[in-house]
Amino acid sequence: MRIEEIARIVGGTAEGDGSWEIQDVAGLDDASGHHLSFVEGQRALERARASAAGCLLLPPGMILSGRRSIAVGHPKLAFIRAAQALRPVPPPPAGIHPSAFVAPDAQFGEGVSVGPNAVIEAGVRVGEGTSLAAGVFVGSGSEIGTHCVLYPGVTVYPGARVGNRVVLHAGVVAGGDGFGYVFAEGRHQKFPQIGTLVIEDDVEVGSNSTIDRGSLGVTRIGAGTKIDNLVQIAHNVRIGRHCVIAAQTGISGSTIIGDYVVMGGQVGIADHAQIEDNVVIGAQAGILTGKVVRKGSVVWGTPARSLAEFKRLYAHWAALPSLAAQVKELARHIGGKR
Amino acid sequence: MRIEEIARIVGGTAEGDGSWEIQDVAGLDDASGHHLSFVEGQRALERARASAAGCLLLPPGMILSGRRSIAVGHPKLAFIRAAQALRPVPPPPAGIHPSAFVAPDAQFGEGVSVGPNAVIEAGVRVGEGTSLAAGVFVGSGSEIGTHCVLYPGVTVYPGARVGNRVVLHAGVVAGGDGFGYVFAEGRHQKFPQIGTLVIEDDVEVGSNSTIDRGSLGVTRIGAGTKIDNLVQIAHNVRIGRHCVIAAQTGISGSTIIGDYVVMGGQVGIADHAQIEDNVVIGAQAGILTGKVVRKGSVVWGTPARSLAEFKRLYAHWAALPSLAAQVKELARHIGGKR
Amino acid sequence: MRIEEIARIVGGTAEGDGSWEIQDVAGLDDASGHHLSFVEGQRALERARASAAGCLLLPPGMILSGRRSIAVGHPKLAFIRAAQALRPVPPPPAGIHPSAFVAPDAQFGEGVSVGPNAVIEAGVRVGEGTSLAAGVFVGSGSEIGTHCVLYPGVTVYPGARVGNRVVLHAGVVAGGDGFGYVFAEGRHQKFPQIGTLVIEDDVEVGSNSTIDRGSLGVTRIGAGTKIDNLVQIAHNVRIGRHCVIAAQTGISGSTIIGDYVVMGGQVGIADHAQIEDNVVIGAQAGILTGKVVRKGSVVWGTPARSLAEFKRLYAHWAALPSLAAQVKELARHIGGKR
Repeated sequence: MRIEEIARIVGGTAEGDGSWEIQDVAGLDDASGHHLSFVEGQRALERARASAAGCLLLPPGMILSGRRSIAVGHPKLAFIRAAQALRPVPPPPAGIHPSAFVAPDAQFGEGVSVGPNAVIEAGVRVGEGTSLAAGVFVGSGSEIGTHCVLYPGVTVYPGARVGNRVVLHAGVVAGGDGFGYVFAEGRHQKFPQIGTLVIEDDVEVGSNSTIDRGSLGVTRIGAGTKIDNLVQIAHNVRIGRHCVIAAQTGISGSTIIGDYVVMGGQVGIADHAQIEDNVVIGAQAGILTGKVVRKGSVVWGTPARSLAEFKRLYAHWAALPSLAAQVKELARHIGGKR
Repeated sequence: MRIEEIARIVGGTAEGDGSWEIQDVAGLDDASGHHLSFVEGQRALERARASAAGCLLLPPGMILSGRRSIAVGHPKLAFIRAAQALRPVPPPPAGIHPSAFVAPDAQFGEGVSVGPNAVIEAGVRVGEGTSLAAGVFVGSGSEIGTHCVLYPGVTVYPGARVGNRVVLHAGVVAGGDGFGYVFAEGRHQKFPQIGTLVIEDDVEVGSNSTIDRGSLGVTRIGAGTKIDNLVQIAHNVRIGRHCVIAAQTGISGSTIIGDYVVMGGQVGIADHAQIEDNVVIGAQAGILTGKVVRKGSVVWGTPARSLAEFKRLYAHWAALPSLAAQVKELARHIGGKR
Repeated sequence: MRIEEIARIVGGTAEGDGSWEIQDVAGLDDASGHHLSFVEGQRALERARASAAGCLLLPPGMILSGRRSIAVGHPKLAFIRAAQALRPVPPPPAGIHPSAFVAPDAQFGEGVSVGPNAVIEAGVRVGEGTSLAAGVFVGSGSEIGTHCVLYPGVTVYPGARVGNRVVLHAGVVAGGDGFGYVFAEGRHQKFPQIGTLVIEDDVEVGSNSTIDRGSLGVTRIGAGTKIDNLVQIAHNVRIGRHCVIAAQTGISGSTIIGDYVVMGGQVGIADHAQIEDNVVIGAQAGILTGKVVRKGSVVWGTPARSLAEFKRLYAHWAALPSLAAQVKELARHIGGKR
């Protein structure tokens, strides 16, 4: 693909030889003469100069004389678009592998791909262009939308509803039993786990993450939300749209998360909490049961506080030895005066 | 099922039309006219009034005039019992799926169900009524008791012993190698991992949790203990009976846990610790190596302390800015008097 | 195997009847007359006296009169060697199970074992003596070295390179997509995840751990590094040689870890951090974005500090109530004098 074609696709302006052929994308350090790379921020300028990339996506106003480049408003986004154009994802090999077990009444859209040893139970519906990889299990009555990718070994428990363009990475368990018991007569008696799981469009879930279905109601993951590896989402949690949840975070039962919430890794949110829209939660933070975190706040620590307050307390904490020394000195001084 | 039948099953007293037909259970908000629901605590009273449920399980003394109801000592437990009666779990489809690989000398009780692509190695014994779902792997010499359910993709390493009515959710790895090395000659040399794993009766383990077998001795999970998703239990850990362990908790090697212990999510317990009976450990708490947590205590934080002490220290911590200001004021005052 | 043979293998000196037959290894408490056990440290001396073991590996200078023993410099290491000799691991059953799906152009070394339902895609190369257990998935173009063991249900995404003698336990997902998005136009747009994963020789990875491949460059796990269960390693992380990473630890994108680094469980390391050689990180510690932890330091807490500093601050924190009381008393005293 010629540079001028890429410039047109990403909506940018080519500098230098626009007919130069680009074959692939690469990072600045790994790129060679027929690679496209991108420059993000002034700090990357030196690496850009040293890069062998055949063409660079540059932010407006940045000039690299003597280099082929494309000036564009958002070089990293342009890089994504260019990568999509240069590396079209081949459609999955349509058809059902002979070793897959598909219930007679399962309904498949056009171009569905079912890999070796996959198991599709009764009443399942799968939308067009969806790929169910080797060893995927989809339990009875579940619905999977169009153009989804379920990687090897994904388990979808019965009755889940998965939207369109959803990606579930290897080992994800979606729709498992919630963890609910009533302690009576000396033992833990299992509360009915008969609710559902809804995963909306454009959600991506990382490897080996687990999402339980509702105990009575629904567990819901909103459209566009991205979930990293080894994340745990409990029964009846409702997550809004376009959230980002980093690895190993855990969200307890019945907690409600708004839209555009961002969580660092290893965050823990107790049950029945409420995280409003646009909240940012720092890595390893802990949110207590029933806590409400207000719209747009940035919180940190366990129990979580506003980042500003956390930093202030943290500074006082780090200064404790000096405070203690000061108190000792005051006491000595007063004692001496008595 | 008529209300009067349900009342008899749960040991309660029906109010209103006892012949009314109930078809299913549901939460207060989702229930409709032929659903049974339950009321727990006075706070749910308003929701109960607004609920369309055809019958409500009520605690003693609570009256909802004009509504069909069943008065019962423990409405939530009664709800569990009613759900069991209204939604009998169908027995798994007995028999071995033709695609499963079962060693010739494996011994199966009556009514065992083996799903597609399951692999059952030599010398395995499986008790009656147990269901091994699609893709389950049971290593050589393992024993699985009666009426267990192993969900898709569970791996049981060789030589494990699993009791009766045990539930292992999708992706559980039971009996893997412990993490033990001896550093010598510049590298980590693997210590023999030749012990066993015993999971006693009525244990339930959540999706993608991992339980290692003993290195030389045994790892043991006591009867009735319930373990959530993504929990890690290391080699030679011994857990007592009827414990509850929430998601993403990790228990290190050789730690001993008593009976009726409750752990929140993301708890970390170092090696060789001892958690006595009836201890409660708050979410994200950390227990140090070799620590003994005394019977019945409630602990919090890292390193964990009694909840009372933790709260006291936490209040002081939160008041640090004011303490520092006070010290500054004292110093100024004394300085001014000099 | 006779005691004198074992003594020769471990380079130790037999005491007592060297012709006594040893059949297996065992821990001190479980050993019987034809078992070999070992004594580590003086504290184990009493347990050694009480042990029924037929022979004991003893540190130099420790004497147990009347007992068969082997004196050796490093009894625990000698125990490892003896276990290897007494319990040779049988080679995997060479050959491809008829139910496995192996691409026609996959290349296998001698003695490769492929279990039931394994899926080996196009262009994969597997070295001699490697065992791919039931249900293992190896994506197109991946290379697996010699004498590796991939346990049931391991998923290797396309294009990964795995060295020799690597062990991946059940449920490991190696080479999955990194978690990288660009927020633009109101949603999270996926950054290309087109890099690679390299796992060097002698690495062991615990059950259900996840290791993402590089987004553009490489994720690398250095030779001899040992990783426990449920660990998350993000895209572009580079880990050195002979590290030990305990369970449920998470390492964020582009972080660089040196050689011989030791991490406790549930450690969280943010992105772009740098952990130099020989660092020790305490369990549950948190390392901030971009932080550099200097060679050989021992760090603790969140945000992590040197252990010495952490202990000092922690002691002050625990003494806060008494400090506050002292300040109150000073204020009262001064007030009284005014």
